[in-house]
Amino acid sequence: MSKVNPWGSGQITNYEKLFSEFGLERIPEEYAKKLKFRLFERGLVVAHRDFNKILARIEKEQQFINITGIATSGKLHFGHKMDIDLFVFFKQCGAKNYFGVADIDAYVSRPDSKIPNLETAKEFAIENLAHALALGLDPKDIFVQSTQGSRYFEFSHELSKKITENTYKAIYGSIDLGKISAVLLQIADILHPQLKEFEGPIPSVTGIGLEQDPHARITRDVARRLQYSLTLPSFIYFKHQGGLQKGTKMSSSEPHTAIFLSDKPEDAENKIKRKTFTGGRDTIEEQRQLGGQPNVCKVYEMYLMHYPNTKKVEDIYKTCRSGDLTCKDCKQHCAKFVKDFLVEHQKKFVKTEKVAKKIILG
Amino acid sequence: MSKVNPWGSGQITNYEKLFSEFGLERIPEEYAKKLKFRLFERGLVVAHRDFNKILARIEKEQQFINITGIATSGKLHFGHKMDIDLFVFFKQCGAKNYFGVADIDAYVSRPDSKIPNLETAKEFAIENLAHALALGLDPKDIFVQSTQGSRYFEFSHELSKKITENTYKAIYGSIDLGKISAVLLQIADILHPQLKEFEGPIPSVTGIGLEQDPHARITRDVARRLQYSLTLPSFIYFKHQGGLQKGTKMSSSEPHTAIFLSDKPEDAENKIKRKTFTGGRDTIEEQRQLGGQPNVCKVYEMYLMHYPNTKKVEDIYKTCRSGDLTCKDCKQHCAKFVKDFLVEHQKKFVKTEKVAKKIILG
Repeated sequence: MSKVNPWGSGQITNYEKLFSEFGLERIPEEYAKKLKFRLFERGLVVAHRDFNKILARIEKEQQFINITGIATSGKLHFGHKMDIDLFVFFKQCGAKNYFGVADIDAYVSRPDSKIPNLETAKEFAIENLAHALALGLDPKDIFVQSTQGSRYFEFSHELSKKITENTYKAIYGSIDLGKISAVLLQIADILHPQLKEFEGPIPSVTGIGLEQDPHARITRDVARRLQYSLTLPSFIYFKHQGGLQKGTKMSSSEPHTAIFLSDKPEDAENKIKRKTFTGGRDTIEEQRQLGGQPNVCKVYEMYLMHYPNTKKVEDIYKTCRSGDLTCKDCKQHCAKFVKDFLVEHQKKFVKTEKVAKKIILG
Repeated sequence: MSKVNPWGSGQITNYEKLFSEFGLERIPEEYAKKLKFRLFERGLVVAHRDFNKILARIEKEQQFINITGIATSGKLHFGHKMDIDLFVFFKQCGAKNYFGVADIDAYVSRPDSKIPNLETAKEFAIENLAHALALGLDPKDIFVQSTQGSRYFEFSHELSKKITENTYKAIYGSIDLGKISAVLLQIADILHPQLKEFEGPIPSVTGIGLEQDPHARITRDVARRLQYSLTLPSFIYFKHQGGLQKGTKMSSSEPHTAIFLSDKPEDAENKIKRKTFTGGRDTIEEQRQLGGQPNVCKVYEMYLMHYPNTKKVEDIYKTCRSGDLTCKDCKQHCAKFVKDFLVEHQKKFVKTEKVAKKIILG
């Protein structure tokens, strides 16, 4: 099962239970042909729940809802970029997009040491949203929790009646009231576009990480219990980008693990060149002889997750494995890619920041 | 301690713990002189928490907030009328009034057998509000949970972070999520008028029953923990009107115990004449000899709680005790009072119903 391939999926073995017990399905290979986007082509979307009905809508050119939320509790990094790219992609498939800025959620679910008040969550909201806009998000596709209308909020409280005590305890254990509020808002985020005051009951899709499946299950459970004949929401599950160091996660709260969308381009370049774990061998001779190990390499992961040209990523994989590509050249190229990307991105950011401020603060 | 007087307070002995352990204070007699309203004059407001600062504002002619909420889960009866009369009274003392129509609260906190959906809560909301308006409530003083703006709702979720798990469990025990939502909304109802987007932090008063003191305590606890330097909200505690039968409570869910504001005047008249427990003796001779027992009499309670003329209520008490007043005459007079009141009230209701509908449904 450890067959090595350019779109290898080593991490997923931890999640076997989700497939066997909880009914998650693996992404069929034909999806990559139907959904021309790097995350599908490269096996980075690893599983789904009820996605077939979304695919059917795409093929029949019928509208569907694409809904995600971002809890604004830190600066955005490349891991977030992947989610946003995926979100933006669905629009060209005919989605009605709902991009949720989850500022209240961020405040109530994070400790005060991280988010001491709503203002802090809103400062991050402006930063996050400005980046999302610079990544191609349409300002018309955004909703901000804290500026939503009464029907959304009414719904966030209304649905509380449909969560049984047993279901809640089984998934979340304790009764931190801030977390409960966050759960109510998250469920409202995903389901409210299907209310008659919004799009009405049509299929919806949300991209999440595998570890977030319990949220997906409770959301579907609530959708079943509500009186509104909602379509059960679909989910796709993507891999998260790892941190720059061996074994780390890319995380805002551990800045050395991440390349932030606000990093100075030269700093990002340096991080790739000097602080990123590679799958290279100890000596250049060994590398030539044995080939590199792209499947553990964080530089390769950056290509895999972000480089637009799939053919080129395959080439990197092959020449690394064959020993023809040295880590030095590879890092150089990756560093330049990231640097150039950030230069362009940050030019856009200067403009989108004003738009974001207006959206968040009114 | 069982000294009998026209404003006797038999029921309160159950609540001794609230005074000794939880810091509730008894209403000083001088309040009746300062607050010219029957509920104070007749000892029906039995306790308070921090009401002195409201009294100080009234005496200095400074504004304060008067906030109450009504969970719209049934038809209004005379017990509710008393709360609304008290609420309306404070306006002439200089209060900025916030009358909350708690429709979402009613839906999430009541079983489906009682309130199966939001529509039902809103139907009751229209009925309840129309009666409140007919009782003298100013339409400008109303807020409806389900039509509130985003700041109110943001706040309802925001404050969840300030309720510790221990506090919540100590007061409410289980984790029914609908009840949790209702608690968040109730706390938001009482505290939101003090936010800078509304009146800013000034003293507020809310009238409740003694059994609701745990809500008052958690609300004050949250007010202390929030970052907004809110003034701790004050509470006054009134007696609830009993049911028409011996030992019953007046309750919407047990219609025979109540006179509803929507009862046909003749039906209400009949209820008083034929279905109400009195403190009368077995025979007219005994009555003349021993006198009646107004302190257990539900007819007398109706006078006590609703009859506008305090002198007349004292007379009824005295002539009943002396044996000069017969139950027949007394009931006749009370039935006529209730009937006449309902005739006039329902004339107003015809007009206020339209206003209420507009306020609730927009």
